[in-house]
Amino acid sequence: MPGPLTIPESNCDVLIVGAGPAGLMTAAWMARCGINARVVDKRGTKVFNGQADGLQCRTLEIFDSFGFADRAWKESNHMLEFCMWNPGLDGVLRRSDRIPDTMPGISRFTECVLHQGRVERFFLDHMKQHSNIEVERGVLPESLEIDESKAEDVAAYPITVKLRHLTDEEAQPEQSKASSSKLQDGLFRSNLAPDDTDDLIRKSKGKDGSEEIVHAKYVVGCDGAHSWTRRQLGFEMQGEATDFIWGVLDIVPITNFPDIRSRCAIHSENNGSIMVIPRENGLVRLYIQLKEIVPDASGRADRSKITPEVILKAAQRTLSPYTLSYVHCDWWTAYQIGQRVATDFDKCQRVFLAGDAVHTHSPKAGQGMNISMQDGYNLGWKIAAAVNGRSPRSILRTYQSERRRIAQDLIAFDHHLSRLYSKRPAKDVMDTEGVSMEEFKAAFLKGHMFTTGLTVDYGGSMLVAKQGETNVKAGKQHLAANVPLGMRFPSFKVMNQADSRPWHFQERLPSDGRWRIILFAGNISSPAQKERVEKFCAALDKPSSFLHRFTPASEPIDSVIEILTVHSAKRYETELLRDFPEILHPFSETRGWAYDKVYVDDESYHEGHGQAYKNYGVNAERGCVVALRPDQYVGWVGELEDVADLEGFFGGVLLERK
Amino acid sequence: MPGPLTIPESNCDVLIVGAGPAGLMTAAWMARCGINARVVDKRGTKVFNGQADGLQCRTLEIFDSFGFADRAWKESNHMLEFCMWNPGLDGVLRRSDRIPDTMPGISRFTECVLHQGRVERFFLDHMKQHSNIEVERGVLPESLEIDESKAEDVAAYPITVKLRHLTDEEAQPEQSKASSSKLQDGLFRSNLAPDDTDDLIRKSKGKDGSEEIVHAKYVVGCDGAHSWTRRQLGFEMQGEATDFIWGVLDIVPITNFPDIRSRCAIHSENNGSIMVIPRENGLVRLYIQLKEIVPDASGRADRSKITPEVILKAAQRTLSPYTLSYVHCDWWTAYQIGQRVATDFDKCQRVFLAGDAVHTHSPKAGQGMNISMQDGYNLGWKIAAAVNGRSPRSILRTYQSERRRIAQDLIAFDHHLSRLYSKRPAKDVMDTEGVSMEEFKAAFLKGHMFTTGLTVDYGGSMLVAKQGETNVKAGKQHLAANVPLGMRFPSFKVMNQADSRPWHFQERLPSDGRWRIILFAGNISSPAQKERVEKFCAALDKPSSFLHRFTPASEPIDSVIEILTVHSAKRYETELLRDFPEILHPFSETRGWAYDKVYVDDESYHEGHGQAYKNYGVNAERGCVVALRPDQYVGWVGELEDVADLEGFFGGVLLERK
Repeated sequence: MPGPLTIPESNCDVLIVGAGPAGLMTAAWMARCGINARVVDKRGTKVFNGQADGLQCRTLEIFDSFGFADRAWKESNHMLEFCMWNPGLDGVLRRSDRIPDTMPGISRFTECVLHQGRVERFFLDHMKQHSNIEVERGVLPESLEIDESKAEDVAAYPITVKLRHLTDEEAQPEQSKASSSKLQDGLFRSNLAPDDTDDLIRKSKGKDGSEEIVHAKYVVGCDGAHSWTRRQLGFEMQGEATDFIWGVLDIVPITNFPDIRSRCAIHSENNGSIMVIPRENGLVRLYIQLKEIVPDASGRADRSKITPEVILKAAQRTLSPYTLSYVHCDWWTAYQIGQRVATDFDKCQRVFLAGDAVHTHSPKAGQGMNISMQDGYNLGWKIAAAVNGRSPRSILRTYQSERRRIAQDLIAFDHHLSRLYSKRPAKDVMDTEGVSMEEFKAAFLKGHMFTTGLTVDYGGSMLVAKQGETNVKAGKQHLAANVPLGMRFPSFKVMNQADSRPWHFQERLPSDGRWRIILFAGNISSPAQKERVEKFCAALDKPSSFLHRFTPASEPIDSVIEILTVHSAKRYETELLRDFPEILHPFSETRGWAYDKVYVDDESYHEGHGQAYKNYGVNAERGCVVALRPDQYVGWVGELEDVADLEGFFGGVLLERK
Repeated sequence: MPGPLTIPESNCDVLIVGAGPAGLMTAAWMARCGINARVVDKRGTKVFNGQADGLQCRTLEIFDSFGFADRAWKESNHMLEFCMWNPGLDGVLRRSDRIPDTMPGISRFTECVLHQGRVERFFLDHMKQHSNIEVERGVLPESLEIDESKAEDVAAYPITVKLRHLTDEEAQPEQSKASSSKLQDGLFRSNLAPDDTDDLIRKSKGKDGSEEIVHAKYVVGCDGAHSWTRRQLGFEMQGEATDFIWGVLDIVPITNFPDIRSRCAIHSENNGSIMVIPRENGLVRLYIQLKEIVPDASGRADRSKITPEVILKAAQRTLSPYTLSYVHCDWWTAYQIGQRVATDFDKCQRVFLAGDAVHTHSPKAGQGMNISMQDGYNLGWKIAAAVNGRSPRSILRTYQSERRRIAQDLIAFDHHLSRLYSKRPAKDVMDTEGVSMEEFKAAFLKGHMFTTGLTVDYGGSMLVAKQGETNVKAGKQHLAANVPLGMRFPSFKVMNQADSRPWHFQERLPSDGRWRIILFAGNISSPAQKERVEKFCAALDKPSSFLHRFTPASEPIDSVIEILTVHSAKRYETELLRDFPEILHPFSETRGWAYDKVYVDDESYHEGHGQAYKNYGVNAERGCVVALRPDQYVGWVGELEDVADLEGFFGGVLLERK
């Protein structure tokens, strides 16, 4: 046994275990907020194909806040239509319904499909652009200890983790070693995107087989359904499994089925169900019920019986009389449906769990990768703010309170939907064993909004000034009827006052760790309203204001809280420098006035009128003030005169600086 | 003198001299068409800042056809508004007009601004993605000979070029060696985009000082206003210079001038003019008339007198009473206005000239980089088609006939505009020395359409079946009133029949060297119309059809001419596989049916109705047929029954294959 001196030790503010979507999303915040973070993953390379693939509206909005939604949008398949197929009176499959896959008008994005490997690429490139954080592959945690006595000491590193750098042999996943995976392996290189080539070479080489000790302030376990981190904490997964086994095939289909390029739910009369997910590059993912494969006494199915051929045969039976075959198969797998949620999401607000480590479910609703990333999106900025001293540690409690309920909602939704997918269609109203196609459609439509990720509504807390919270004075929701407290700030087009460029408002809310005050300045051309705006600005601009107290003296005034203004007067009748107080477009000695902070709700030259005041439900004459969290969720709403309340809200979530 | 055996010799189908925008655009075609091409440039590195910056609508459409318009669109500043400033009755500057900088509705893009270095980056990345062609930097041509007796021999390499690989010292431009360029040098690294870092290292190192002989089928000289290639051919530049000297400053301005983020033309009463071009990253380019700097007897100005300080002082005088200063200067230069066009654009259709090598003018209209790239865009596919045997060499004659007229139009436009910019505003209608601001505005509006690049209208030729051409039967323009022969195919939204995704039609016309038949199939739900479509398809599908004769037997049927269909029936009432003949969605043994070739003019779920038939001016019941050149220009229009005429058109421009 080596002596303690032979193992190198180091400090690290945040250690992220697992470089899947949840881990990379958490790391994205660290990169943007300048946090000293490390990301380790036991796999030797990133994912190059297969895995999760659905990207929901809210996920794309989040990608956009980091600056790479355009890459996902360009490379992905846009899945726009949902078709339902089931037996007619003659028992033959026919299309019974066609509806938009994403409800029109709820986001500037629609659901789209792109494999997990590309999503991880975007995160890796983003980290490289904004930080020196790299994923260290082939690195496995071996032990984790928390010194709970130091949990509330902000300067301490109360967590000790021992890491082992694996050898090449150890880091290679079983799947790619097995001889049965020739199929995937054969396609491996041909599917490799050009910008992924570098990742074929492991970065941490040279340390193979060595160990190290890391002292961390925070650890985030994003290490999947079999989470090592969760097991160290001793948390249980609660829930249940079912007998339904499904196979997954990623193929370029050769078929005469008419809707192969639409999302489809196909219920055959007696031969099981298929879900069709059309993908990028001509691929289609088929989720296929495997009725012959049944679990044994232990509740587990015999995996060795499942091959691509078995899955294809099942699909051919379901899809009959239409034909189906393929030459190219990109990836395949099989899974047993189950829904489980972890009892706890964190330990002492020092070790956190995210993604599959705290919730597992079927891939039917296309939610896994999305909810996992959204866990990381909720958590990352909070840890960053606790590390860099902007916020008190107490904000970290909201991770579990906000995200565990989302996980529970997801599990309930998936439980319902999976059973509807797995049962045969009812022959008639008396057929209680079967699933009524009316019920299926109703469930789909109901789940429609849930699966966009846009209905997330966080409860009242220090971060969300909802009615009923003891410490926070509730925001005045009626002033911005369509900007609900606890939900993400919706996006409508506004026009830049200085250069007339229209922007979706969300594009001006990048995920850079800043809080934002949205000043709906109302009709700035009215002298009375202009006076209200000037009073509000004077209160924020005085040296003793919370804005100054929460911003380090050495940093620009917009570095902790950024003020964005949108007014409702005519752009032609207003002037940035003449009509708007300086705090709304701060002056820099090197760059002059800021031109990217004042917007107008007016007709643009090329993209129409955003009707922002109407869409946000704000009075166009008097406006209001909205406070946004760094993750675009709405924390507070009030009048221009409610500066004391606004100060109270920020006082709960930000710390005074020197 | 070294003996002939000591100099290495090699063959190359296309040698491009100069890796600026014109050369890179030509190279982009070579990359996409799989041509054996080389690109040499005497400079040791690419451009990193300054230079040209305006990107016009048509240029962005072309970028989109190569797949990188999104990068330019994202990084650039969108210049949306044009403001005119001139003295009021009191002699004080005031804004007299505000208009959209790009006329609404003419393109899906608007004018935007991004420096040449980024544009070159997009081309370099595009070449890397599609080919092994790399720019060889620090390489200078020393001699050029054409064996004219072999000019019409398609197998010959009639051009011999001697190249010299420069040493580091030779490859470094004078500008960056001079001590006066500290300003730019100091900012050099801070302005460097992360993805440009690789280009700091010269690629051809190791060959320094050596020579080589290249035998080429074609040479394209894109080597700028002082073109070495043009001098070898002995072609003259015809035109004139003026006495007007202008300075250019790229700065982050510190100013209280209200419209610094809009494009502005500022005419002061007696202190000259400024053009304001707001750019990316807070930069603004100022074009400033230098009234004190006058040319000497030789017609040349003393460059040593021009410094950033001199230019700034001139700007301050013009802009008074508004203030102007800066801390950051990115780049600066000065130029003397002149307009010249080369007498010839090619020699024996073997050596071609493009870009500044054949036309020079002022940067006022933001046209230089755009027209240069459009030269390369017109030329590249023609050379590629001649090299790979798709087309007869005779199509190469259309380069000069099409592009020299564009250059002459540009020169005439620039001549007029430059004088309007350089003269002081008229005091009243009797002041004939001054420029009437009404005249200025009228000239600007007239030039507005010209500068978009969208009014280019190529004359009748074998490539454009206009009335009056002897060998080509004229197309029936009335069948597609808004798809003018000789102009670029306009873009409206159509929806994919298979997956309901809306596309701008132009997005389906990538620059990959293919010709296209656009089949406006009309109302496919009508039995009579369906019969017409079936007859048309049967004629194209028979083994002896021109489609089969012009396509090599070993290649897919859509590899030389691709057929894209847009019909006007309801999408819900039509089925891809049932209602459209196979030739419209060809079957592949490995990939099944093609799903990306049939479109419908119908209401989409999220992006409205494109009204394509109405916008293209095509009868929605009967449709018509349009033939497009590989560069998206319209070559022919006819009825579904005019297959013989269509064959005649293609027979003139394509060769039979085995």
